[in-house]
Amino acid sequence: MPGKKRGKQTVVFHNPPVITSSASIVGPDEGKGPFGSYFDQVLPDYMFGEKTWEKAESKMLREAVKLAINKANLKEDDIEVILAGDLLNQTISANYAARDLSLPLLGLYGACSTMAESLLLGAMLVDGGFFSKVVAATSSHHHTAERQFRFPTEQGVQPTVTTQWTATAAGAVVLQSEGSGPRITAATVGKVVDMGQKDMSNMGSAMAPAAVDTIKAHLDDLKRSPDYYDLILTGDLGKIGKAIAEELFVVKGIVPKPFYNDCGVLLYDENQDVNAGGSGCGCAACMLCGPLLKKMQEGSLKKLLLVATGALMSPTSMFQGESIPCVAHAVAVEMN
Amino acid sequence: MPGKKRGKQTVVFHNPPVITSSASIVGPDEGKGPFGSYFDQVLPDYMFGEKTWEKAESKMLREAVKLAINKANLKEDDIEVILAGDLLNQTISANYAARDLSLPLLGLYGACSTMAESLLLGAMLVDGGFFSKVVAATSSHHHTAERQFRFPTEQGVQPTVTTQWTATAAGAVVLQSEGSGPRITAATVGKVVDMGQKDMSNMGSAMAPAAVDTIKAHLDDLKRSPDYYDLILTGDLGKIGKAIAEELFVVKGIVPKPFYNDCGVLLYDENQDVNAGGSGCGCAACMLCGPLLKKMQEGSLKKLLLVATGALMSPTSMFQGESIPCVAHAVAVEMN
Repeated sequence: MPGKKRGKQTVVFHNPPVITSSASIVGPDEGKGPFGSYFDQVLPDYMFGEKTWEKAESKMLREAVKLAINKANLKEDDIEVILAGDLLNQTISANYAARDLSLPLLGLYGACSTMAESLLLGAMLVDGGFFSKVVAATSSHHHTAERQFRFPTEQGVQPTVTTQWTATAAGAVVLQSEGSGPRITAATVGKVVDMGQKDMSNMGSAMAPAAVDTIKAHLDDLKRSPDYYDLILTGDLGKIGKAIAEELFVVKGIVPKPFYNDCGVLLYDENQDVNAGGSGCGCAACMLCGPLLKKMQEGSLKKLLLVATGALMSPTSMFQGESIPCVAHAVAVEMN
Repeated sequence: MPGKKRGKQTVVFHNPPVITSSASIVGPDEGKGPFGSYFDQVLPDYMFGEKTWEKAESKMLREAVKLAINKANLKEDDIEVILAGDLLNQTISANYAARDLSLPLLGLYGACSTMAESLLLGAMLVDGGFFSKVVAATSSHHHTAERQFRFPTEQGVQPTVTTQWTATAAGAVVLQSEGSGPRITAATVGKVVDMGQKDMSNMGSAMAPAAVDTIKAHLDDLKRSPDYYDLILTGDLGKIGKAIAEELFVVKGIVPKPFYNDCGVLLYDENQDVNAGGSGCGCAACMLCGPLLKKMQEGSLKKLLLVATGALMSPTSMFQGESIPCVAHAVAVEMN
């Protein structure tokens, strides 16, 4: 049997791990968007019964994980390891969720690329024969991210037109070696790409080159045409980043034009006041764990390439004159 | 062939990945400690020719990775993926290092447990057949950590006796599917353990229960006696945490008493003013990548269980009344 590595950055799975269940919990604004009915739970407010936004985010992640485990007809104790991370310093949402669940944790930091990173590592751990039941999960929260990365919401700073709205959302999947459901068939680990962008309010344009770099590596490594996929979906480039990505597809010679969209563009309605679109780990996570996997289960979507994109942006390094390094990881999800 | 999973949290490797090279770079104080001569490079100051401590830390990590690759007689382009993280918000040391090296990055956050987390995940990726040449690396820097987690050094706040000194150090290993050198034979993924400790200046006592929990899981899962190992070495419990761990060994029924020590105790001399001892991702990393792996190469150490310990401490969650969740991952390294 040939090895699992393909080309420079891509692996294929010999026994493609199965996404046996998924769960998504979103905030009030995400619930009002075009996919509102696809999410398992829409919160009526940003607090989720907690005293702080940070505690609300961690609860959202924990409850999404519990729901996914429950939907897979498993007990929490059946899960061997959880791969999770989030946007917050020290990934506190994931840490406190794993503490409350009493599960072994492999903590990740990939900024908004975390859903793809957790999926691809989880799939490697299952296909590699180490574990047979793992959870991949992530979350983000509008107000915790604003407080940490930009300005506290209470300060009322006017966003620019390039600003993206961090999604309040959590998504979790159970990955198993056996079972029925969509399978993770291949994955590409992204390089850190930094084109010198220094504007913390324009992450879409910073991330677009990383997304296209990973998509090109994926297609080249697997010698695939873009139309192999019914949908190539980036994580959270938003309107501006998506437009740049579409130009870069041409520049990089990615033809035919892929069936392409972006979670940050899809998550909200045109009339919702989210400027350039959605962002945050939860953006790709809730879109995958809600509408996309449901469409795969229904049979209306067969082959998806999810390319979650992360701006590894740090207020500290920005103040020191650094630019924003970005990364994108790609995961191929296929339904027979 | 039986599977790779053992017990609840442990895996064994069928083709144990080889640590074909390692590199360590440390700060001036670490160079003055008892293992100073074992490190590849001792910096004369904390700046490493850079304008900020943060840039110095990232350079230290990058240069350690480059040195490890060089010592393995490989080119940077031969490395398929780097698994790395650090203590800083958004893991900027790892991100900028991976950007400068132009390598695919899987970003981790395990606080001071990162060296073990990167080793165990790297070993899974190699033994699982996905990659054959990966780098596992981490770093910490005294002044960047103080600025972020406690008080900026310039403020001159008096440390307490329980405070630990974040090591200025970086360590990197090259893991390969083939070659000669110490091998990673087994690993245990730790649970998040939180005993309610809320003192950010007493991390050793917060982390000790997590360390002992993982050591017990490891020994139970593999049905091993502690004296299987020539040395069980925790990452950075320091003097206070080590004493607590030794009491917990008794409570947990871990007999015979293991050949046990702690990197935070070993890294500095008694007369160095580091209060309760060393800490930081770099503490376990430089001890492994310097003296320990050299002793294994020389044959004076055969079987090591490295248990890197992380306090997943967040100033934000501390201000919100939360306690410090901790995690420890264990990696068995053996030399034939």
